[in-house]
Amino acid sequence: MGIYVLVHGSWHDGAAWNSTIRELEHRREKAFAPTVAGHGKGVGKDVNHADCTKSIVDFIVEKGLSDVVLLGHSFGGTIISKVVEAIPDRIKRLVYLNGFVLADGHSLTDEVPPFYTALFDRLSQESGDNTVMMPFPIWREAFMNDADLAMAKWTYAQLSPEPYQPTKDKLDLKKFYKLETPRSYINCTEDAALPQGEWGWHPRMSSRLGLFRLVQMPGGHEVIYTNPKGLAEKIIEAGRD
Amino acid sequence: MGIYVLVHGSWHDGAAWNSTIRELEHRREKAFAPTVAGHGKGVGKDVNHADCTKSIVDFIVEKGLSDVVLLGHSFGGTIISKVVEAIPDRIKRLVYLNGFVLADGHSLTDEVPPFYTALFDRLSQESGDNTVMMPFPIWREAFMNDADLAMAKWTYAQLSPEPYQPTKDKLDLKKFYKLETPRSYINCTEDAALPQGEWGWHPRMSSRLGLFRLVQMPGGHEVIYTNPKGLAEKIIEAGRD
Amino acid sequence: MGIYVLVHGSWHDGAAWNSTIRELEHRREKAFAPTVAGHGKGVGKDVNHADCTKSIVDFIVEKGLSDVVLLGHSFGGTIISKVVEAIPDRIKRLVYLNGFVLADGHSLTDEVPPFYTALFDRLSQESGDNTVMMPFPIWREAFMNDADLAMAKWTYAQLSPEPYQPTKDKLDLKKFYKLETPRSYINCTEDAALPQGEWGWHPRMSSRLGLFRLVQMPGGHEVIYTNPKGLAEKIIEAGRD
Repeated sequence: MGIYVLVHGSWHDGAAWNSTIRELEHRREKAFAPTVAGHGKGVGKDVNHADCTKSIVDFIVEKGLSDVVLLGHSFGGTIISKVVEAIPDRIKRLVYLNGFVLADGHSLTDEVPPFYTALFDRLSQESGDNTVMMPFPIWREAFMNDADLAMAKWTYAQLSPEPYQPTKDKLDLKKFYKLETPRSYINCTEDAALPQGEWGWHPRMSSRLGLFRLVQMPGGHEVIYTNPKGLAEKIIEAGRD
Repeated sequence: MGIYVLVHGSWHDGAAWNSTIRELEHRREKAFAPTVAGHGKGVGKDVNHADCTKSIVDFIVEKGLSDVVLLGHSFGGTIISKVVEAIPDRIKRLVYLNGFVLADGHSLTDEVPPFYTALFDRLSQESGDNTVMMPFPIWREAFMNDADLAMAKWTYAQLSPEPYQPTKDKLDLKKFYKLETPRSYINCTEDAALPQGEWGWHPRMSSRLGLFRLVQMPGGHEVIYTNPKGLAEKIIEAGRD
Repeated sequence: MGIYVLVHGSWHDGAAWNSTIRELEHRREKAFAPTVAGHGKGVGKDVNHADCTKSIVDFIVEKGLSDVVLLGHSFGGTIISKVVEAIPDRIKRLVYLNGFVLADGHSLTDEVPPFYTALFDRLSQESGDNTVMMPFPIWREAFMNDADLAMAKWTYAQLSPEPYQPTKDKLDLKKFYKLETPRSYINCTEDAALPQGEWGWHPRMSSRLGLFRLVQMPGGHEVIYTNPKGLAEKIIEAGRD
């Protein structure tokens, strides 16, 4: 039995993993999906990246978890890279699910195409509370490309505004890049949340991991919704020894 | 029920879509496959790109079609980009099936590898009527890589010489690049009609579409023949709201 | 009925093909898997690339084989490129299975990422007999990414030290690059033995073949172990006329 801690991406909270956790439990795995600080509906959004990281570190420590397969989806990739710096002895393996593997000293917004940064800068300024809400047309076309309109709308209703500061914070990752924790990268082959090619997830992000295990599956950026069964199987392939 | 207008590529005529249309009709969709001017067997080949575009515009207008999902395969991608400039109000969505998305001011032959342009230039000069016939070895290896020899031969017999002028005409696409018509790109993952990589279909062509919906399926450049059932399903995924 | 000669890669011997040959024979194909000179357990390792090539040429000539579909896996790609120079009239088609297609004048180690060359140089110096053994962590993560740990361990036990000289020999491939023998490339989509992208198998290696037939299948570098049934089907697709 593996112990999985699943860290969601931007606009999500821990409930995004509900179906995937059910599938993992069917396969006799144990999985947790804490909500990152400043994420979810009806909570304060005034957090920075260190607050986000601390909320996951605290969760793992308070639960007393060890031998953890720590998975980060999208923005969650930036979190797990810092969590493993803080508590390396509790982490058995890192798994990035189309997750950001930032270069040392970079912020997330340093690593997305300029049209995204320009859009998010504008939306955060207009928000009044330094948050960014995902525009529906981008969600429907670039994130939910493998879903029908009903699912695109239903999942959109689960989202909440993303605190912008954590994606602007530049991260010191020198310790991360010295760690030898085993690591895997799950790449969804139709994921176009980052445009494929020059700005894509794989191999741009994955290749920074050095020796890593590549796992691929069909689907877009949100297989947590569109294919939780297939995702659970790939999480196990990515997380096993 | 969606309304699909399917625009074939070079060497083909509208009959290339017969099996795909049958599959779409089984799924209660309505689909049309007009033959582009100057294409097919036994017709005059003295046409330019504007003639090709006009033949599809006329078809849609004369049939009184609106809310059209307009799909272009390969060379057909250059046609649909100009058709939507002429009758934007009738087009609900554009779908490129490994289709050319030309840069503004370019011709199709500006965007294929030099060995293709050199070959096609020579074949057109030798033709006597400024047409290019696809050589069978290229058809069999690079276009029909997912078929057996019998299917490669049978489909080759359906082809006819391609008028060369439409692929040499440089297209003004300024209006196209200002339109906000929703758009999708279907990429067949074994399509090597354009060599994969630097000169490939995706993401080179697709990324020019700005925000678009990526759909992928297995198969080579001619899934219209090798997998019409799978293609029909992907056309619906690409074309739905 | 096709005649297949299957040339294994580094660390392997002919027995690596046992399951694949069984699957080919179920499909009424005839297949041979000679062991390359200097490969396998308990044999002398003092060979160069010419010795390796000669051992396969001799096998084909002594068996009196013709109309051969000659397949090379990984390092085996460098062998088949030289074998076809020696006996072009016996070879009907070349098939590279994530195989090296070297540039004229290059050695295999000229075409792998610097971290591999540095590692292999060091391991060969430490070996005492100019061989390189694959380290298990690389085997498990980068070669057997699609296997469980038990299969990774079992297959590792089949390996033997690789003679290093054949991978350092620079190959004159001028004749190879003039031959017009039909050729195919089978790319396993999760193969990360060479890191995907800039240093990857496809399209970097495959594009050097000029006109070739692309065939893809899921799996990592060692589908000979992880999916011999699927591999046999793809070998037939790649090898047929």
